[in-house]
Amino acid sequence: MRAVPMRRGELRVDEVPDPVPGPGEVLVKTLACGICGSDLHMVQRVRRALAGDDDGDQNFRFDYDADVVMGHEYCAEILEFGPDCQETLAVGQRVVSVPVVPRGDVRVSTGYSAELPGGYSERMVLSEPLLIAVPDNVTTEEAAMTEPMAVGRHGVAMSRLEQLPEDTVPVVVGCGPVGLAVIADLRRRGVERIVAADFSAKRRELASTVGASNVVDPNEVATLEAWRAELGTAEGAPDEPGALVFECVGLPGMIQGLIDAVSRNSQLVVVGVCMQPDTIRPLSAISKQVNLQFVLGYTPEEFAGTLASMAAEELDPRPLVTGRVDLDGVPAAFETLASPDEHAKILVVPS
Amino acid sequence: MRAVPMRRGELRVDEVPDPVPGPGEVLVKTLACGICGSDLHMVQRVRRALAGDDDGDQNFRFDYDADVVMGHEYCAEILEFGPDCQETLAVGQRVVSVPVVPRGDVRVSTGYSAELPGGYSERMVLSEPLLIAVPDNVTTEEAAMTEPMAVGRHGVAMSRLEQLPEDTVPVVVGCGPVGLAVIADLRRRGVERIVAADFSAKRRELASTVGASNVVDPNEVATLEAWRAELGTAEGAPDEPGALVFECVGLPGMIQGLIDAVSRNSQLVVVGVCMQPDTIRPLSAISKQVNLQFVLGYTPEEFAGTLASMAAEELDPRPLVTGRVDLDGVPAAFETLASPDEHAKILVVPS
Repeated sequence: MRAVPMRRGELRVDEVPDPVPGPGEVLVKTLACGICGSDLHMVQRVRRALAGDDDGDQNFRFDYDADVVMGHEYCAEILEFGPDCQETLAVGQRVVSVPVVPRGDVRVSTGYSAELPGGYSERMVLSEPLLIAVPDNVTTEEAAMTEPMAVGRHGVAMSRLEQLPEDTVPVVVGCGPVGLAVIADLRRRGVERIVAADFSAKRRELASTVGASNVVDPNEVATLEAWRAELGTAEGAPDEPGALVFECVGLPGMIQGLIDAVSRNSQLVVVGVCMQPDTIRPLSAISKQVNLQFVLGYTPEEFAGTLASMAAEELDPRPLVTGRVDLDGVPAAFETLASPDEHAKILVVPS
Repeated sequence: MRAVPMRRGELRVDEVPDPVPGPGEVLVKTLACGICGSDLHMVQRVRRALAGDDDGDQNFRFDYDADVVMGHEYCAEILEFGPDCQETLAVGQRVVSVPVVPRGDVRVSTGYSAELPGGYSERMVLSEPLLIAVPDNVTTEEAAMTEPMAVGRHGVAMSRLEQLPEDTVPVVVGCGPVGLAVIADLRRRGVERIVAADFSAKRRELASTVGASNVVDPNEVATLEAWRAELGTAEGAPDEPGALVFECVGLPGMIQGLIDAVSRNSQLVVVGVCMQPDTIRPLSAISKQVNLQFVLGYTPEEFAGTLASMAAEELDPRPLVTGRVDLDGVPAAFETLASPDEHAKILVVPS
């Protein structure tokens, strides 16, 4: 089949062997698969590791010399059941699943393993018990957005939002797909005032579309100052509440910059994935009693709940989809997304 | 009066002017005052700042050329009321107070200001409305421990302890006065199993005395491995709970070391004050969904509650007091505490 494998940090369009479903597994046709920032990070990381820089993470393991077909944000269609399947869904059914295929004691990460291809391919093998049928009123493109939207849902669920007063105004820093997913989930939960910040005009426009009420260009106004203006409070004022800030950029310096900017007793939810070591000044975090909540991924329940919210028309991921490419367009799309001013999510539509 | 002022990072024993109580203020005789690690840090910090290294904290302000009499962990006796006092307490009454004297719009920090002397002196000026009478059954030395014990109470109050299962086994890293105060407060709250770690044999002994059930020399066993052994779980096991760890050391590298050691969904309460910039690897914190809660000080209610717990015999700070000096002994005590293997708290008894 055709696919876009990566080897030694380079993507190419190529023929690769068709995956074969094992017991309890299903062969599917990839209908759409989002390009995730983590995949861009992975390409860069493999290149750095091959150049001798392991980012200080001695746990990083990756088979550089193998072909790895990335892509873990997919909607697919059932083609064929492997052995020992329950076959409760029909061939032709559209499905999504969390990007994991349990094989014995190993959990194969779809999109980050040489063992099974991810969604930058014509066909994949998924785990039957993890499949979720896509309701008819959810389009294929929406369904492919289940995974990245679940990341936003999880970030919000891991925050202190529910313990905070109802008139809390969350701040979302960075309006790439992760930040947009956070904003969309805050709206879904009924939060009406949301301050969002991004240097890109296109992304600020998207932030408004998905529900941010006050969208800031940090070149023009400091994000936390916009938040204070929204509240009618001043930095250090006795009535200044702790802020709830979602860090959705993931670059070195962001965390300390936000510690410096926030009020006392603020919570920073770190959703953006910073791959490099970073410097903080603990004394400044201590003096403000900052809470840093690092988060990753989502639970299976949050993943399923995200799809259900789309079916219930409580969550609309469509504004995030800013481009579509076929398999031949994937390498160029990676280049485009490296300077992401004009895009949020690009979907790969293999056929 | 006699006191131990610091100027340009050097302590000396000297005559200084007697402080004069303003409106609503009280002249007191210092009965006992603990030497705090923060005072040692301050001496070092001033020395570094004078050598051109501001620790990256551009907010650090200190009057290097003035005489500052440190000491903020005191028990004192009322000598004389200034103008406009309520005089609800009697001359001769033993008192404690949070180390702040509000003067107009300024909150003078007792022990860190050139405006009023701290407790390394024969006499101080305190704010009448902030005075708390020491109950008769609380000794002067115990009362002087109210402040450092309140720090432990606050660290525990800011943790997730109450949301965690009852059989949670907290971990306390570093058994100096801060760590010991955390252990004592955990015991006060009824926590029976506490893992504590320190390189010093003396401090490990103190940790046992104040209530740690499993005390570890990190040279012999990794602290979090002792915690896993206590729980009967293994690193990465599916039933491994998130840990609750109190970081009470405050040196660069401690935070990342603990991020590397803890289980997924752990909370690190950072009570130790690291004055220098520190390096973390966000990716490792993200992959474990670590929560970092930085904390500082205590609330007035926690301060008063700490004294009340001593009066109710629910909290015993006496084991922490490992030495006593008069004013002449203060400079040498600072040297002794710089290599703190043999001490927890040294009290200054001015007369």
